[in-house]
Amino acid sequence: MSENVPLVQTQSQDPDQGHDHDHEALTSPLLPHYQRASNSTSQLAIVGVNVCPIESLDYEIAENDFYKQDWRAREKIQNFQYIFMKWLLCFLIGCTVSVVGFCNNLAVENIAGVKFVITSNMMLTGRYEMAFLVFFLSNLVLALFAAIITTFISPAAAGSGIPEVKAYLNGVDAPGIISLRTLVVKIIGSISAVSSSLLVGKAGPMMHIGACIASLLGQGGSRRYGLTWKWIRFFKNDRDRRDLVTCGSAAGIAAAFRAPVGGVLFSLEEMASWLKGKMWTSGLLWRAFFTTAVVAIILRALIDVCLSGKCGLFGKGGLIMFDVYSANISYHMADVPPILLLGVVGGILGSLYNFLLDKVLRVYAIINKKSVTYKIFIACTISIFTSCLLFGLPWLASCQPCPLDSTEDCPTIGRSGNYKKFQCPPGHYNDLASLIFNTNDDAIRNLFSKNTDAEFQHSTMLIFFVTCFILSIISYGVVAPAGLFVPVIVTGASYGRFVGMLFSSHTNLNHGLFAVLGAASFLGGSMRMTVSLCVIILELTNNLLLLPMIMIVLLVSKTVADAFNGNIYDLIMKAKGFPYLEAHVEPYMRQLTVADVVTGPLQVCHGNEKVGNIVHILKTTNHQGFPVIDEPPHSESPVLYGLILRAHLITLLKKRVFLRTPVRIGADAFRHFSADEFAKKGLGNVDKIEDIKLTEEEMEMFLDLHPFTNASPYTVVETMSLAKASTLFREVGLRHLLVIPKRTTGSPVVGILTRHDFMPEHVLGLHPLLVNSKWKPLRIALPRFLKIF
Amino acid sequence: MSENVPLVQTQSQDPDQGHDHDHEALTSPLLPHYQRASNSTSQLAIVGVNVCPIESLDYEIAENDFYKQDWRAREKIQNFQYIFMKWLLCFLIGCTVSVVGFCNNLAVENIAGVKFVITSNMMLTGRYEMAFLVFFLSNLVLALFAAIITTFISPAAAGSGIPEVKAYLNGVDAPGIISLRTLVVKIIGSISAVSSSLLVGKAGPMMHIGACIASLLGQGGSRRYGLTWKWIRFFKNDRDRRDLVTCGSAAGIAAAFRAPVGGVLFSLEEMASWLKGKMWTSGLLWRAFFTTAVVAIILRALIDVCLSGKCGLFGKGGLIMFDVYSANISYHMADVPPILLLGVVGGILGSLYNFLLDKVLRVYAIINKKSVTYKIFIACTISIFTSCLLFGLPWLASCQPCPLDSTEDCPTIGRSGNYKKFQCPPGHYNDLASLIFNTNDDAIRNLFSKNTDAEFQHSTMLIFFVTCFILSIISYGVVAPAGLFVPVIVTGASYGRFVGMLFSSHTNLNHGLFAVLGAASFLGGSMRMTVSLCVIILELTNNLLLLPMIMIVLLVSKTVADAFNGNIYDLIMKAKGFPYLEAHVEPYMRQLTVADVVTGPLQVCHGNEKVGNIVHILKTTNHQGFPVIDEPPHSESPVLYGLILRAHLITLLKKRVFLRTPVRIGADAFRHFSADEFAKKGLGNVDKIEDIKLTEEEMEMFLDLHPFTNASPYTVVETMSLAKASTLFREVGLRHLLVIPKRTTGSPVVGILTRHDFMPEHVLGLHPLLVNSKWKPLRIALPRFLKIF
Repeated sequence: MSENVPLVQTQSQDPDQGHDHDHEALTSPLLPHYQRASNSTSQLAIVGVNVCPIESLDYEIAENDFYKQDWRAREKIQNFQYIFMKWLLCFLIGCTVSVVGFCNNLAVENIAGVKFVITSNMMLTGRYEMAFLVFFLSNLVLALFAAIITTFISPAAAGSGIPEVKAYLNGVDAPGIISLRTLVVKIIGSISAVSSSLLVGKAGPMMHIGACIASLLGQGGSRRYGLTWKWIRFFKNDRDRRDLVTCGSAAGIAAAFRAPVGGVLFSLEEMASWLKGKMWTSGLLWRAFFTTAVVAIILRALIDVCLSGKCGLFGKGGLIMFDVYSANISYHMADVPPILLLGVVGGILGSLYNFLLDKVLRVYAIINKKSVTYKIFIACTISIFTSCLLFGLPWLASCQPCPLDSTEDCPTIGRSGNYKKFQCPPGHYNDLASLIFNTNDDAIRNLFSKNTDAEFQHSTMLIFFVTCFILSIISYGVVAPAGLFVPVIVTGASYGRFVGMLFSSHTNLNHGLFAVLGAASFLGGSMRMTVSLCVIILELTNNLLLLPMIMIVLLVSKTVADAFNGNIYDLIMKAKGFPYLEAHVEPYMRQLTVADVVTGPLQVCHGNEKVGNIVHILKTTNHQGFPVIDEPPHSESPVLYGLILRAHLITLLKKRVFLRTPVRIGADAFRHFSADEFAKKGLGNVDKIEDIKLTEEEMEMFLDLHPFTNASPYTVVETMSLAKASTLFREVGLRHLLVIPKRTTGSPVVGILTRHDFMPEHVLGLHPLLVNSKWKPLRIALPRFLKIF
Repeated sequence: MSENVPLVQTQSQDPDQGHDHDHEALTSPLLPHYQRASNSTSQLAIVGVNVCPIESLDYEIAENDFYKQDWRAREKIQNFQYIFMKWLLCFLIGCTVSVVGFCNNLAVENIAGVKFVITSNMMLTGRYEMAFLVFFLSNLVLALFAAIITTFISPAAAGSGIPEVKAYLNGVDAPGIISLRTLVVKIIGSISAVSSSLLVGKAGPMMHIGACIASLLGQGGSRRYGLTWKWIRFFKNDRDRRDLVTCGSAAGIAAAFRAPVGGVLFSLEEMASWLKGKMWTSGLLWRAFFTTAVVAIILRALIDVCLSGKCGLFGKGGLIMFDVYSANISYHMADVPPILLLGVVGGILGSLYNFLLDKVLRVYAIINKKSVTYKIFIACTISIFTSCLLFGLPWLASCQPCPLDSTEDCPTIGRSGNYKKFQCPPGHYNDLASLIFNTNDDAIRNLFSKNTDAEFQHSTMLIFFVTCFILSIISYGVVAPAGLFVPVIVTGASYGRFVGMLFSSHTNLNHGLFAVLGAASFLGGSMRMTVSLCVIILELTNNLLLLPMIMIVLLVSKTVADAFNGNIYDLIMKAKGFPYLEAHVEPYMRQLTVADVVTGPLQVCHGNEKVGNIVHILKTTNHQGFPVIDEPPHSESPVLYGLILRAHLITLLKKRVFLRTPVRIGADAFRHFSADEFAKKGLGNVDKIEDIKLTEEEMEMFLDLHPFTNASPYTVVETMSLAKASTLFREVGLRHLLVIPKRTTGSPVVGILTRHDFMPEHVLGLHPLLVNSKWKPLRIALPRFLKIF
């Protein structure tokens, strides 16, 4: 049990508790010895770069008499209105996200474009030092700006945001994950970070932006800043908001990649871990699909506007769609070995990438904790390092003569194109500069391009790959909005193209195709998705004939990488300390019963409870739910009546409708309350017990909790295996799970399980013998020298 | 409660039970009055065209001591083996399904091709009567053959099979849904039915074939026919088999449409209703993806072989992929109104189609029940009617002069092409014959083709649409394997192209594109899927630029159609009587508690039970699970120990290891049994209590049920709302849900809920007042004159 809310508590675990009977518990899990030590798992997690207290979300319907009464009184028109509002909000989310996504791209293309045009022009006239200065300073200013607004206004906006939103959809609530402040900083910060030539992506932040927009629309604006619209403040519980956030994150991915189907699948496969069952049932899938359709259509219309040249340097670039393979591709069985090789290498590189990124993030987290100056300092250092690399490395590459049969200008004039002049004499181009001294989108487009097999040298490709690999690892931890998708795609495409060059004599697939497959393999190796990545890559490259090859590559790279470590987002979430409920059950959980992990002491209320006792319980514990028990003389024997939420108790206390004697008042209670008072308010608007002042006389009075108690909470018997209980907890989406005893005599409830009780750290803390048991996940262990990190 | 297995029982409901207190129950669902009437919902359903007894599948792990012991004794190598076998079987399923799918197409293309080539050649020489005779007779013979093998060998193979497999994956078990016999008949029957020019599809049967292959491989062959392979007989429970069948059905769709991603998504969105939550978690998604990747690769290789002309008339046709839109498409806001119109019309037509098909199927079901002769007679009539229409209608169309700028031969020579000569003079073609006197695949290809806007006349299109609409409705009910996808696509494409012709002056989209959108709208209107249909259509047409348009059309048509009636497969399932657990909760279920629907009488076992009592219980009831209760003197008060399955009781009785006195023997019991004895055998291999003969002396002995009882079954308290219990039942995937009382005195268990207790017919039968309550699904009622059907 436990759900200690805004209490800052150390993360250390007490190593002395519950060791003595572990071996016994393992071999024969008998009933009676409950662990009465309290759960010591942390109630804190890192959101963005800040440590915040966390809570669980309420997805269960609190089925109390009051709710039933309210539900019964609902008119048909209200049901219509409810459904209509759901669809309307999806429409609004789609509109807003697509417009924001478009403006985001427009801004990046124009800011980065102006920067590259000015430096290129300076280099054309030979003023190389001046060009470097402009490039260097503009990058530094942009990066610094992004870091400063993130640090001082909303630290929660740092990073990609995907781990945070994933945790939110898993049921973890932390203030700041989703707020107006985060939204604004994320938009502006993402634009300046991406424009500053840092190797960071915009897809992750875009998804976070989508989630924020959805949440803000769902709670009718931001109360904190007085920006509220009453007519859309319609959704009063976490379930409806969760649905909207799912639609919002799908819309975000759809807007980032112009991949509407990919967006829906991404939010299903990767994000909506806890509600997958529900996702496909309740029409949510359909609404998510609708939202991304709106995004696709509006983006299409906006691009139509830009095609006429009204958007500055936006041109045809912008919004990623590498529509480079409209021609037919033919491939045969002989092409399979290089493809398999790509998959294997992608898997190894992907897991190495995850491993290194995780370590680097942990180091950054330690530095970030020290002071604000360090945070800004890291951002500046990385920006300077990046600028030097980007401007310095192309000088290493030799100039290549322009191909005679090229369909493009060579060297390229203006913003984008395959042949950058850089320092080369006329009629020549610098192949490394074409990749490195460019926006990431253009670099990807160059790598994916076909009929350019002779364009790049082996050394160029290798330098570019190593640079990207290093930069993408060190840049992600910077204190600014930073996505992972684009860096991973660039890195993967570069090594894919390199492999293609090595195999060029053995296969007739062109190098651009190898770059696409390389990107797929690296994505598969680090993000470990299958269907959604497959669809996103198809939507990016617009050629379905690639499908079987992409499928093989993804499967191979995921299989190889899974042998080493986990999904990158899961690693980040773990490093950040989110109590994420895993989709699968750890094997050792089958060996334990719920009685083996339930912790105490248990705090219960009585059906007719003294106000003073309630206040005492609320003040001395941080639990969010309390079992309600009827005892003699109110019943024949002690009976579990149900579960009441802290929020509901506080609402009752605030209303001060107390009774002089402990009697059951029944439906009479309802006329003092409206349903709105029990509705869960938006994030970060929780009433606190400390704010309620009661007189001595009131403290001696009584409350009848029955009408407000969820009379049918989910229960499990204490002998149920932890694995089975965890399945129930996850599949149904619970916050509290009551444990009832096998015997019917004695207390009718043994304890409460919350998500913290299912965390491997907690379970293994109580039963350390399990750590080295044979029931571990099957994984290849890292060699010892890597473990010292 | 109840799960009456092989008992043939009338489907009528007792209308007199439980009426008296309905209104009261509605307004205040109080505890004590349990309905002691037994559940009268039918335990029968129509599988294919035969009425069969049905059962539920066991997806829950029976967590008894014996299972735990067995699990603990497992070695790491066994876990590896288990995982390896899962992947190996997916690979085998992929290989087999793709080869079968390919051969299926090859056979159809060649048989139907030869037929059309012979008739066309006869018509070229003016022997029209002879041509008709050949066409007519070959169709009749093929249709008759399909009907006869289906009727006499495996009636379960009739129809598309999607409703049956969907019900299976929902947890309904019926002998024959999935068996070797069904598989063989389905393959041969589908080839001959499709070749016979009936308007039936091959995608549905292909999916059923995939499911059968997966199930047979999963249980190591067919025991009935002695075709077993011991080394793959590895999976011993319904969970693992369900996973394999899911992969198999995905592979089937993938092979039918060459749409690997679409196949996975179809099996997710439409089929795997009950395990959606699990699907995305346990790596099943990934295995399904792997299976369809294998299918895609093998199909690709087989087609490569055929491209060299070794496959007779197969040529480039075969395996559907209407790769007709590789060019860029541009569309603008002005094209939106006709697209919306298409969506609306598609929705209305789709729901009308569902309505009519449902009625026709019900009529057929009545006729089919009468005798075998009637079944065959219907098949012949429809074949004759179809042949006459196909050969007769083209005579109504006027001959068109060949276009001068065509890239194709005109009139077409050989098998496929846009311009059929039929009866026309040289240099002319018959546009209706090009559509109607052709295989369905070629008709779709002609309709989807671009740059042929002038090819068809308005009247031709209208005639073709009406013909297809009628034929597709009457042909589905024929006693032969018959899919719905292709008929729906043809019909939709024809009306889409017709709409395109009407709007041709207002839009610059070509007619082929309108045909694609028409097909999408009709699919959306009748099948009501979103993401999976979208991906399947994209994979069929191979152009991602269509995506936003297809999304709008699907959304509009689904929305419109949902206002009238349900998904076609759900309607068919309902008509067939499958107890399908809906994904959503009916609104009135929130008004009832589980105590309001639980039925009796409850049959319990004691922890130490007399053999005679067990035999008596098993013989007199048809229940599949029994609560096990410990009563004084074995415990202080009556305690619910757990739930034991009928199959496990029978295994215990068969073994005859009885005790002379009622004592608890504990782990001692295990040495008499191996885990295999408790494993669930393949479908249709159930031991019956009647086959076990026990002596008088044995009947007086005792069994200790404790070690074999699932000691932690899922329980709900009797006051829980039916809606909440139904969520639990569905999300976790249960067969039995125990209802426990609120009070702790008295019996520790109130009843058992099975899937039948959640069926709307049962609930509304007990509480008829709810039928006209305000808590109904929001639907537009049909006008009265349509209700008389």
